[in-house]
Amino acid sequence: MSPDKTTPYDQLMARWQQMHHFAHLQSIVSWDQATMMPPQSNEARAQAMAELSSHLHALITADDVSAWLKQADALPLSTEQAANLREMKRQWTADHVLPPALVRDKQLATARCEHAWRSQRAQNDWLGHVPFLKEVVNLTRQEARHLANIQGVTAYEAMLDRYEPGLRIADLDQTLGALQSWLPQLIRTSVAQQASQAVVLPQGPFPVEQQKQLCLQIMEALGFNFSTGRLDVSAHPFCGGVPEDVRITTRFNTDEFLTSLYGTIHETGHALYEQNLPRDWLGQPVAQARSMAIHESQSLFFEMQLGAHSKFTEWLSPQLTAAFGEQAAFAPDNLRRLLTRVKPGLIRVDADEVTYPAHILIRYGIEKSLIEGEIEVEDIPGLWNEGMHQWLGLDTQGNFKDGPMQDIHWSLGAFGYFPCYTLGAMYAAQWFACMQDQNVAHASDVQRGDFKAIKTWLNSNIWSQASFWPTHELVRRASGQALNPSYYQKHLENRYLL
Amino acid sequence: MSPDKTTPYDQLMARWQQMHHFAHLQSIVSWDQATMMPPQSNEARAQAMAELSSHLHALITADDVSAWLKQADALPLSTEQAANLREMKRQWTADHVLPPALVRDKQLATARCEHAWRSQRAQNDWLGHVPFLKEVVNLTRQEARHLANIQGVTAYEAMLDRYEPGLRIADLDQTLGALQSWLPQLIRTSVAQQASQAVVLPQGPFPVEQQKQLCLQIMEALGFNFSTGRLDVSAHPFCGGVPEDVRITTRFNTDEFLTSLYGTIHETGHALYEQNLPRDWLGQPVAQARSMAIHESQSLFFEMQLGAHSKFTEWLSPQLTAAFGEQAAFAPDNLRRLLTRVKPGLIRVDADEVTYPAHILIRYGIEKSLIEGEIEVEDIPGLWNEGMHQWLGLDTQGNFKDGPMQDIHWSLGAFGYFPCYTLGAMYAAQWFACMQDQNVAHASDVQRGDFKAIKTWLNSNIWSQASFWPTHELVRRASGQALNPSYYQKHLENRYLL
Repeated sequence: MSPDKTTPYDQLMARWQQMHHFAHLQSIVSWDQATMMPPQSNEARAQAMAELSSHLHALITADDVSAWLKQADALPLSTEQAANLREMKRQWTADHVLPPALVRDKQLATARCEHAWRSQRAQNDWLGHVPFLKEVVNLTRQEARHLANIQGVTAYEAMLDRYEPGLRIADLDQTLGALQSWLPQLIRTSVAQQASQAVVLPQGPFPVEQQKQLCLQIMEALGFNFSTGRLDVSAHPFCGGVPEDVRITTRFNTDEFLTSLYGTIHETGHALYEQNLPRDWLGQPVAQARSMAIHESQSLFFEMQLGAHSKFTEWLSPQLTAAFGEQAAFAPDNLRRLLTRVKPGLIRVDADEVTYPAHILIRYGIEKSLIEGEIEVEDIPGLWNEGMHQWLGLDTQGNFKDGPMQDIHWSLGAFGYFPCYTLGAMYAAQWFACMQDQNVAHASDVQRGDFKAIKTWLNSNIWSQASFWPTHELVRRASGQALNPSYYQKHLENRYLL
Repeated sequence: MSPDKTTPYDQLMARWQQMHHFAHLQSIVSWDQATMMPPQSNEARAQAMAELSSHLHALITADDVSAWLKQADALPLSTEQAANLREMKRQWTADHVLPPALVRDKQLATARCEHAWRSQRAQNDWLGHVPFLKEVVNLTRQEARHLANIQGVTAYEAMLDRYEPGLRIADLDQTLGALQSWLPQLIRTSVAQQASQAVVLPQGPFPVEQQKQLCLQIMEALGFNFSTGRLDVSAHPFCGGVPEDVRITTRFNTDEFLTSLYGTIHETGHALYEQNLPRDWLGQPVAQARSMAIHESQSLFFEMQLGAHSKFTEWLSPQLTAAFGEQAAFAPDNLRRLLTRVKPGLIRVDADEVTYPAHILIRYGIEKSLIEGEIEVEDIPGLWNEGMHQWLGLDTQGNFKDGPMQDIHWSLGAFGYFPCYTLGAMYAAQWFACMQDQNVAHASDVQRGDFKAIKTWLNSNIWSQASFWPTHELVRRASGQALNPSYYQKHLENRYLL
């Protein structure tokens, strides 16, 4: 008999490959749940998905994995193999401290809460939603405590780490806290300046079929690969599926098309990242997208850095005319004004680029206190209203639908995700500044819908890099420095201060 | 410490519950593969599904299951528990002899073959399809040999048993062989008689959206529950999903609507069976549909026994007018003639009720020889052509698309399934005769679209009985006797001989 040549590293790779396959099924079935599943099929589905979560948890927390991880440390590994091992350890550390019953309970509770949210949000039924959400918060706190103990961080910090590995509250407080010094003034000034600006609103109705065709056309132009992905409709737009089969969603409203179109552009940014992760490495930990903040930097790059650029609106304008007929509102300059209109509003996903961070800061404050156990679910509406008053001068009392019930994140147990949106916006500004420095983003290219150079930059600096490096290293390699929020501030001031 | 009260039977039930959850995911993801998946996403999907098949196989073949099954024999069990144990043993016996590598290889090979079939069929590319199909046949033969050895039956018999437990070749040869004595004459006579019959063909185009609305409307009237099911489009219509979330499909052609409508009625028959399996028992083996022949008896009951009934066409007629406008073809009597038009043709799924069994007999002969190793994949077109000449006087030389490539079954490795269609047609005739004996199927009810009494009969005799009894016992309890093909012969002679 020949000696067994299988190393502990090979064993780990085989196990992760298995998990990759089950995660594939999980992604597709989750997508189905949000887009296709009939209304009363949720309970059976929730149980099936809880079983799958438990199985995935069992695969990574099995004793053999722990032994292989220790043994693999002693092996001579290539840079990429070492990166794989680093990512496997990170994931294992987070997962192995969680009791299987907790994993299953949270999966079940979030599936039920999310399902209840769909109808309860429509009915503004906060009181009905509270028990569902309390259960999710209760289980998330348990999860966070387990994770916090092993990582030596606080409970909320442990949740942050799930979406942006290595992110700490002190850094986040500093990064987001700095907004306090200039954002309120920027909001006030841009609203005041725009008060005298003439903007023509598009006149509906905009038939769903035309809107869908337009979305598909813009996705195609941006490089979405339809042979390995598709666009559908869901209550809350998202980018799901797997790199080999990316499923993005939007929602249509015949009164208005820009929200749906730019939502689609946003999700296309996520999709391009997923579709361009290194093919040869798929199934290995290094081939996963780096983090949610980096993911949002891609969606926001396409939606705001590129999408609200004056040259992009010049390219878009004739396509709107072709889709919906001639309208004064479709003039490039008017489009740009529409897309950069600053108007404090209740809904985060409809918010403009300038007031958006305010929505994040409100949520960040609340979810941090909630997970740290300083407040309870019942306190949310009051704090929400307070935050909306302070930041945007708006009242949300009694309006839960457009208040704390507007987002799906908390119902899904995704506490710690919201900060990634604003970090993503900051990274996106940094990428764009970098491209301009390197003379990559030519106005004339964008004007005629040629995004090749931009995508080549993103591909070589972000997409193809996947998780080969930790976030800070990825950012330094891509832009020559760490996250520098001044690019974001400059971007907003350049775009919004006349 | 209190003593452990968990019995081996409880352990078995827990394991089957787990399998039920994974089978749920498998069904939904398979549905997605056939209806939603982008064209180039198949390879990753096939691998993920192979992983799941292996896992399901591992769950049932684990050593503990074998021990629990032995121990459970000694327990005092209720009738239902004993039925559960019987079904678990049956499934375990079939699964535990299959090597895990074979299960995975067949899953992968069938996924690839089915995916190749989609484009190769369209291109009439038999030669391109042969290597894919040979691989599936090769693996199916291995599977069949393993099963045959343990059951003491022949290879093909072992495959039959997967779809219709307990069915043996000798019985099947007798049941199907008997058709030889009267079917050829019935085909000739009905074709001759109908030659002088005036039939008005519906005039297209029939827009897809109207066809879809009509299908949904008829599904609703037949009792399909849309809160736990949906209708979509796929290349090959099927009924998939799970009892709690039934997914049926159809395909539309703007030239013609009856095929799609009656295909939908057929799948609705399957769906009603699934949606009405005993809710309180779901997840337990006894709650599964009895067999594929019984399943087809439900689809064919709705499609042919009920759907081509003159009272049904009276009910349907005004609905067609409402959907597509006034047409002479929509007169009830003309509709009935259209639905009972006997016309030898190449395509099984488009075949009339009288020539349909000929299609099955051709496939039965070929797949039996193929799995028993008497012929090879390369021999199929010749035998197909021979059978079509003999039975229907049609030539299929060079026309693989409408010949052996028309069905998806073999590409999916589902050898042994085809006989279930004709057995199903026979059972359906037996159910209808029974209802008439018991004065259940009132013509006046059907005429005004009231299917309550019929569904009550099916529900109490078939749907709610699920797998509590073996097929022969189910049939005896429902109709007072074993399968009696004379009802089928009488039904066809009554309907087709003037």
